[in-house]
Order: sequence, then C-alpha cells, then structure tokens
Amino acid sequence: MIDPLEEAVRLAEAGVADGSGPFGAVLVTRSGAWFRGVNMVTRDDDPTAHAEVVAIRAAAAAEGFDLSGATMYASCQPCPMCLGASMWARVDALVYAATADDAARAGFDDARFYDQLRDGLDSVTDVRVEHRVIADGSAPFERWLGKVDRVEY
Amino acid sequence: MIDPLEEAVRLAEAGVADGSGPFGAVLVTRSGAWFRGVNMVTRDDDPTAHAEVVAIRAAAAAEGFDLSGATMYASCQPCPMCLGASMWARVDALVYAATADDAARAGFDDARFYDQLRDGLDSVTDVRVEHRVIADGSAPFERWLGKVDRVEY
Repeated sequence: MIDPLEEAVRLAEAGVADGSGPFGAVLVTRSGAWFRGVNMVTRDDDPTAHAEVVAIRAAAAAEGFDLSGATMYASCQPCPMCLGASMWARVDALVYAATADDAARAGFDDARFYDQLRDGLDSVTDVRVEHRVIADGSAPFERWLGKVDRVEY
Repeated sequence: MIDPLEEAVRLAEAGVADGSGPFGAVLVTRSGAWFRGVNMVTRDDDPTAHAEVVAIRAAAAAEGFDLSGATMYASCQPCPMCLGASMWARVDALVYAATADDAARAGFDDARFYDQLRDGLDSVTDVRVEHRVIADGSAPFERWLGKVDRVEY
C-alpha cells in the first residue's frame, strides 16, 4: 500500500498537472479513513482552500469537528493557516515532506509569513493589525461563559 | 450607520445567543461590500469555520481569491489560522476588539496557540510536527516552476 506521505506528494504532482497548485495532503483519522486534499484556491476562489484545510473539512464533515487521533500528511510544511487549522482540529501529528523554504523557492509566501509571525503578531505582518478598544468589546465572551448549554470546541 | 467593528461584535453577541460561539467578523472589500462571518465550527462540523474564515470565503466567492484592498473587522484578535488566512487573502488591514487573552479567559485556545507558534514551529505545538525527507519530496515545486501557464496566488 502506498504511504500517506507519498500519496500527499502524488496529489501535489497531480495539482501541478491540473493547474491548482503543487500541494497535497492526506489526513488519516482515528477511524483509519483517508481524507485527501489538494489546493483549491484559484479553482474555487477560496484563499483558505489549501490542501490541508480541504482535507480537514472533508474529514470533519464525515467524522465531526474534533479530529483528535488523526495524523496529517502534507506534501509541504504547512503554512501558519494550515498549522493553526490542524491545531483547532486537534490533529495529533503532522508529517511533511518539502519545507517552507522549498515552497518559497517556488514563489510561495509560506516562509515569509512564518517569519512575520515569529517577529511579532501586531505590526509586522503583511496585514496591518490594529487593536481597537471599544465598549463591550469583550462582552460576547462574558455572555458565552454565562451560557450553560454552550458546545465547547 | 453602524461601524463594521461594532457589527462584528454584534455578530459575536448573536453567536452566543444561537450557540455557535462568541465570535463575529465583517470583511469590507475594496468594492465597499460587507461580508459577514460567524463561527460555524460546531454547527457545520468544520474546525476551520472561524468567523474570519467564513467572511473571507464569502468575499472571495463573490470578488475573487485576491482580496487586496479589504479590511477585516473582527470581534476578537484573530487566531493564527485566521491571521494566516487574512495574509493569504491579501487583506490590507485587520482591526479587532477583544484580545486573545480575553478569549483565553472564555476557554478558547487562541493565546496558547500563539505562544506555541512563537516558541517554535517544529516541536512544541499541540500537534507533533515531523519533517520526513522522502525521494522527490520537493519535485512538485520544480514541476510547478516549469509550468508556464500557472496561476500564481
């Protein structure tokens, strides 16, 4: 049987052939099922549709939003968005083949975005980030804590 | 007219009422259109469906994957996933009301995830990250660079 990491790279190769981008991912859930993802950013006009996110969405739709016990196999080191998505999905482990520097050499911004996150979260990213203090800005959280039937995630 | 940041907080309040979670976002695109998002994680079984991601997806579906010129208004400091999504969407600016520490007090992991990203990307996150070197692991990028009709993003 093909290894899931090899399969992720194979999906990345297929993504080059069909023009969607050189990324692929396979999420193996605790049930043992494989959920595949390829980059759909330009095809679906969805900048969040990286291969890992596509795989997480497919897996969570089938098995629920808590994917603990799953392992993500990615053709390339996940970008900050995809690493964050894996954290929220409670994925146990993440295995990747190519590095963010490899992606940088192919014209992708992963390495630069990582550097920005490392350097500081508030001002040095491509996105200008501003904290604006407004009345009741944190009121939703107080209400949330007061809600006894909340579903935590 | 209501301010988009106030509207984001109002959406967060509504999210508490309907049980989806205390987060809201309004993405104002370069066209001046407003795209709203609320947290849909538990409702849609999609761990990536944070308010900001939902707003980005809606905006990109309408106006294309490159949202440069847009400003994101978020009820709370975006988590690493949402900040990453904003970077990839080429959002110009991001304005938030409550902080990741406010979210932490309400039981959310944003602050912890940020700390993990700051401390190091390879081993100290909730997700065990492993770089596995395999043959042809970066081959998709070489093919990508050789593809003359690629759509960059």
